[in-house]
Amino acid sequence: MIEQVESDIKDLVNQVGYSEITRLFDSLSGGKRLRAKLVLKIAASSKESIRLAAIIELIHAASLLHDDVIDEASLRRGVPSVNATEGSKTAVMLGDVLYSKAFSELVHFNRDIASCIARSVTALSVGEMMDVNMAQQFNSDADAYMNMLYLKTATLIEASTAAAALLAQKDATAYGIYGKNLGLSFQIIDDILDIVSDEATLGKPAMNDFVEGKCTLPYIYLYEALDSSGKVRLQSCHARELSCEESTWIRSKMEEHRCIEKAYALARQLSDAAIQSVAGDTELVAIIETMMKRSY
Amino acid sequence: MIEQVESDIKDLVNQVGYSEITRLFDSLSGGKRLRAKLVLKIAASSKESIRLAAIIELIHAASLLHDDVIDEASLRRGVPSVNATEGSKTAVMLGDVLYSKAFSELVHFNRDIASCIARSVTALSVGEMMDVNMAQQFNSDADAYMNMLYLKTATLIEASTAAAALLAQKDATAYGIYGKNLGLSFQIIDDILDIVSDEATLGKPAMNDFVEGKCTLPYIYLYEALDSSGKVRLQSCHARELSCEESTWIRSKMEEHRCIEKAYALARQLSDAAIQSVAGDTELVAIIETMMKRSY
Repeated sequence: MIEQVESDIKDLVNQVGYSEITRLFDSLSGGKRLRAKLVLKIAASSKESIRLAAIIELIHAASLLHDDVIDEASLRRGVPSVNATEGSKTAVMLGDVLYSKAFSELVHFNRDIASCIARSVTALSVGEMMDVNMAQQFNSDADAYMNMLYLKTATLIEASTAAAALLAQKDATAYGIYGKNLGLSFQIIDDILDIVSDEATLGKPAMNDFVEGKCTLPYIYLYEALDSSGKVRLQSCHARELSCEESTWIRSKMEEHRCIEKAYALARQLSDAAIQSVAGDTELVAIIETMMKRSY
Repeated sequence: MIEQVESDIKDLVNQVGYSEITRLFDSLSGGKRLRAKLVLKIAASSKESIRLAAIIELIHAASLLHDDVIDEASLRRGVPSVNATEGSKTAVMLGDVLYSKAFSELVHFNRDIASCIARSVTALSVGEMMDVNMAQQFNSDADAYMNMLYLKTATLIEASTAAAALLAQKDATAYGIYGKNLGLSFQIIDDILDIVSDEATLGKPAMNDFVEGKCTLPYIYLYEALDSSGKVRLQSCHARELSCEESTWIRSKMEEHRCIEKAYALARQLSDAAIQSVAGDTELVAIIETMMKRSY
């Protein structure tokens, strides 16, 4: 079924009618197509569900193109990013074409479905802006961090599962909760892996999030646990290259205060709520469990 | 009526719910609101027509934000551009928020209206990419140039007038032709003014288009008229700073071969077709005539 989504994505891109777009799009790595797979698992395979899945993957691709421009990322899914190979301007323009093509197709769907997906794109754009702004200074507010994570990472997954449920006349609220919690857990695990994995596994330097100014949950938990001189030291490490001694200190203090375990426990709690929300859907439960166990 | 559109635009931006977005949006100059005025002139003033006008202005603002990033423009409507004051990344993110908010609201309209506007955004994004790619080398193909101009500049105006006509149950094809031709004429006049006006009037150096690599119609007509050594000389001036002697030569050759008159005649022809298409609508005719007479 996922092959039909791939083929539909190609058709939509070709419909734009400019060979330069097709060439650039073909150079992108498609990734896991998580959102498309969720749509197909929740809604039965049909022309409509395949098109919905293709539209959501176009939106996701567009958001990653713009994210990489904003984060100045040189790699995406192990291959050089479009901004790195073709320049930021091309990445912005390609993203705009994919976004607008996706929206053009979305209007053919039921209004609730179209609205659900469209609103999530506003949320993820706002989330991206919050992420950039939060990284300007040391953030120790866990609620603000979780809200940003929800907007930036979870809303499109939430909208994908809710829209698929609407298409299949299932319970959109329940499937929306599943998607939201899957997205949040996924990102918390990602944040943990940035700290506990090594450079070879990550394909980028470890603790890169903090170097880029991003105070993920384990850092926020560490800050809460440290005494005032520790707090000052942690803040002084924010948003710059870390010495070996500094990263060792952060890791050992995180171990002492069980910050990774605490973040993992929250991901587990969110995953359990996701599972409960779609109780009985073994395929969706398996997706969550695989995600929770990943190590890269 | 236009005040109600301004107020609706503000409401939509505030609905996004992030004060940083409101602050950034408030710093933009609203411009002439040509597209909103066209919508209100074609469709009677109603909650729906005001909302449609507001949506289109959000889309237009988003496209200008991204255009300025792509063209590295430091000024927009006489004030520093967002990319100049807040950085390109912020301009990309703000544009994404405005685009997606506009699309979120668009889905509440009749499918034909939503589709008409959404498709024009894909067209304008493709047009922007064509514009950038065409400027990489000397382009002497007038048809390719006009196609790019249509996509980049005229499609959103065409969609605005056609969508307003659909809302008012008027002839969408006829009003679409009006909008398309208004957009094309407007841009041809803009291209002419870049050559015939002085720096003080333009607020930027004269003949800036050609310096940036853009071969507008008068340059294409000049290339067609020149002998082979003239063609070589013109091409050698492309996409770089011009000496005083070179710009004088280009202007005198354009005069000799009546290139400006030829471009103006095409704008006039397109305007006449626009007028014919909405014959009897004196307000729309007046907009075209005012535009044709502008000198800045």
